[in-house]
Amino acid sequence: MARPKPISGFPEFLPADRMVEQRVIDIISSTAELHGLASVETRAVEPLSQLTRKGEIDKEIYVVRRLHAGAGDADELALHFDLTVPFARYVLENSGHLHFPFRRYQIQKSWRGERPQEGRYREFTQADLDIVGSQTLALHHDAELPLVALEAFERMHVDLGLPPVLMRLGNRKLAQGFYAGLGIDDPSAVLQRVDKLDKIGPEGVADLLRDQLGMDESQIEAALALARIRSTDLSFADDVAALGISNPLLDEGIEEVTSVLTAVSSQFPERIAADLRIARGLDYYTGTVYETELVGFESIGSISGGGRYDALASDGKNTYPGVGLTIGVTRILAPLLSRGHLTSNRSVPSCVLVAVDNEDGRSAADGVARSLRARGIACEVAPKADKFGKQIRHADRRGIPFVWFGSSVKDIRSGTQEEADPATWEPPSTDLKPGIVTNW
Amino acid sequence: MARPKPISGFPEFLPADRMVEQRVIDIISSTAELHGLASVETRAVEPLSQLTRKGEIDKEIYVVRRLHAGAGDADELALHFDLTVPFARYVLENSGHLHFPFRRYQIQKSWRGERPQEGRYREFTQADLDIVGSQTLALHHDAELPLVALEAFERMHVDLGLPPVLMRLGNRKLAQGFYAGLGIDDPSAVLQRVDKLDKIGPEGVADLLRDQLGMDESQIEAALALARIRSTDLSFADDVAALGISNPLLDEGIEEVTSVLTAVSSQFPERIAADLRIARGLDYYTGTVYETELVGFESIGSISGGGRYDALASDGKNTYPGVGLTIGVTRILAPLLSRGHLTSNRSVPSCVLVAVDNEDGRSAADGVARSLRARGIACEVAPKADKFGKQIRHADRRGIPFVWFGSSVKDIRSGTQEEADPATWEPPSTDLKPGIVTNW
Repeated sequence: MARPKPISGFPEFLPADRMVEQRVIDIISSTAELHGLASVETRAVEPLSQLTRKGEIDKEIYVVRRLHAGAGDADELALHFDLTVPFARYVLENSGHLHFPFRRYQIQKSWRGERPQEGRYREFTQADLDIVGSQTLALHHDAELPLVALEAFERMHVDLGLPPVLMRLGNRKLAQGFYAGLGIDDPSAVLQRVDKLDKIGPEGVADLLRDQLGMDESQIEAALALARIRSTDLSFADDVAALGISNPLLDEGIEEVTSVLTAVSSQFPERIAADLRIARGLDYYTGTVYETELVGFESIGSISGGGRYDALASDGKNTYPGVGLTIGVTRILAPLLSRGHLTSNRSVPSCVLVAVDNEDGRSAADGVARSLRARGIACEVAPKADKFGKQIRHADRRGIPFVWFGSSVKDIRSGTQEEADPATWEPPSTDLKPGIVTNW
Repeated sequence: MARPKPISGFPEFLPADRMVEQRVIDIISSTAELHGLASVETRAVEPLSQLTRKGEIDKEIYVVRRLHAGAGDADELALHFDLTVPFARYVLENSGHLHFPFRRYQIQKSWRGERPQEGRYREFTQADLDIVGSQTLALHHDAELPLVALEAFERMHVDLGLPPVLMRLGNRKLAQGFYAGLGIDDPSAVLQRVDKLDKIGPEGVADLLRDQLGMDESQIEAALALARIRSTDLSFADDVAALGISNPLLDEGIEEVTSVLTAVSSQFPERIAADLRIARGLDYYTGTVYETELVGFESIGSISGGGRYDALASDGKNTYPGVGLTIGVTRILAPLLSRGHLTSNRSVPSCVLVAVDNEDGRSAADGVARSLRARGIACEVAPKADKFGKQIRHADRRGIPFVWFGSSVKDIRSGTQEEADPATWEPPSTDLKPGIVTNW
């Protein structure tokens, strides 16, 4: 078999890079669990008919079919393209067994048949955090999820050396109320077009609003003025008031942004800002919306987004409102890893290589290894009773910092060797696990 | 939307059951890492042409195709049906960046379009452990992988209350050498038929050997006698010798079983036995083979298997021999969870529910929660300032053991309430994380 080539859009990592991903996933899941979110996994497939209900993305769906499918086979299946649709289905399917508000996180792969490019993958890992109520869900949960996500991002920044983030906060009610107050009939049509600001700029948006929606210049100017409002404090509300529009839904939106921003910025003042341009394309958001960027790496695009939806799911009898937030694990890591900004200082988990003097001494070496492992120190035994120099190179090539020889242990970085008892020796705590190496 | 129904063969778990799966996966990955195995993940898809090279299972493959695939689309893709084929491809693709012997574990889902039944799933999680050499790989690794797997199984037994396991050890060389010593031309044809012993019994196998291979009665009797040999000690070798067959490959096989059994039983004497019936159907095994059952739950089938393959992969220049072992996570858990043998005592990770007196007191409650979380205590804040009885019921329904009221904490199981400071209070260590509940 000739050497196989990667498949474009399906990133895979070498072990040292995979360790970075493991650390990121571990930070997200442990943070979510500290906040009482339970883990859920859903199957990779959904009925195709469920995935194509939202017409927008049906081009990107991967259909799944048995190679020799029979005529009697069940409905067609497809790979999920996000974790929200499967989660909504899971909530409906299991609603009798879940306790609401139901708090869950879900870290899994999704698949989209998009044209691959940096930041866009055909297979990618996402971490979703959601809180879902039955009939009602209090507003304070809109602040709770950014607090969980920002706590995780802060650990990635401080513990792993990833760049800090900036979360931008918008609100659908605020924008829709503002447009309604401007006398516009179809506020969501405006919302969809203003959402293209980053892509086509203010002139482009003005053209769309004028040509497609027939808005007049003062309406266009007001809509663009709203989209320019940003603040890390509550001054955004004064800036909105200065535009002179009044509407009850607008007031409600301002109150919601005020409440969420106050709660989140009390914990993470540097990491959150009101940004009234944030609308998010998807139809189902109904209030708070979030977008997050890596500071200094804005070109990667939004690495986390989400918001409030008044009806994540509904079975006719019950409606399940929710607030959710997605962290794009692959979106963050694949570019940073491939550009060499991040990796690990080992390609194996081992802290110690136990050397083997000769093959008759292998079981003694195995005993040393067992003794170290019993105290949580990862190690491996040399595969071959080579010359010691070769065994040291074996460790060095993998980034293993310590080599155990007989009754002593050598730090191969400094060359220091000391007598040691495998029942009591401890490595420095920073050497116990592989470390992250950054290069910005 | 009406209540959706599960898709047969695609098991999903409720949160309390998912926590059992998380614990099992955590035990496997932490044990593998203690032994210096690095984590690898591969993409879910492989080129269809690679998956159908082994003709045997092509019926069971799920093909993956973009809903609106164009004519210019790349080769057809399919979901992997195990983790061995993708891993072999990963080793070839990245051989220049890997250090051999390469030690890895991989915990992912695989998909097979088989008819669903208990113990057979269309989507299932497997944990693979492999050690792969370049050109050569020493025999001691054949004992190393069972030691890693049995250490993980022992933790599942002792820490989680799962049943103990019995690993059965066979050897292809031993069996093939024995059949060759019997004067049989095609030993692997015999191996394939003897492998059906569990399914069709000794008479059935005898019929196949007689009718399809033309073996005489003394050859058949000898082959069945070999398959009856089992021992937890080294007496299997005497039993083979008593059959009076002599062959160099047979001797090599006996030496290999002796060596592996000695090393493994020195650590896990109750968990391993030589069982010369074990052959495993797949062609690529060339020496040691393993099968593992849950004691008392043999009807579930083999929950872990594997063995030595002299050529996991080859690129013409280099051959990569390996030894590997798969743990069937879904195969173990789905039946035990669905029969109610195992679950968790909580449906959330939270150890504490922080009660909310009234909505103005929410930020004080948030402060208590932050203080607990900072010390690794998972908690959630009551979603609503309900009557205290209702807040206790909220905790009780989710299995949360403690409710925090103002400056005191109540164990809602015993009713004991004590003054407590969120900066110093510690729950009993057994309450910190959700516990596993067993019911055999």
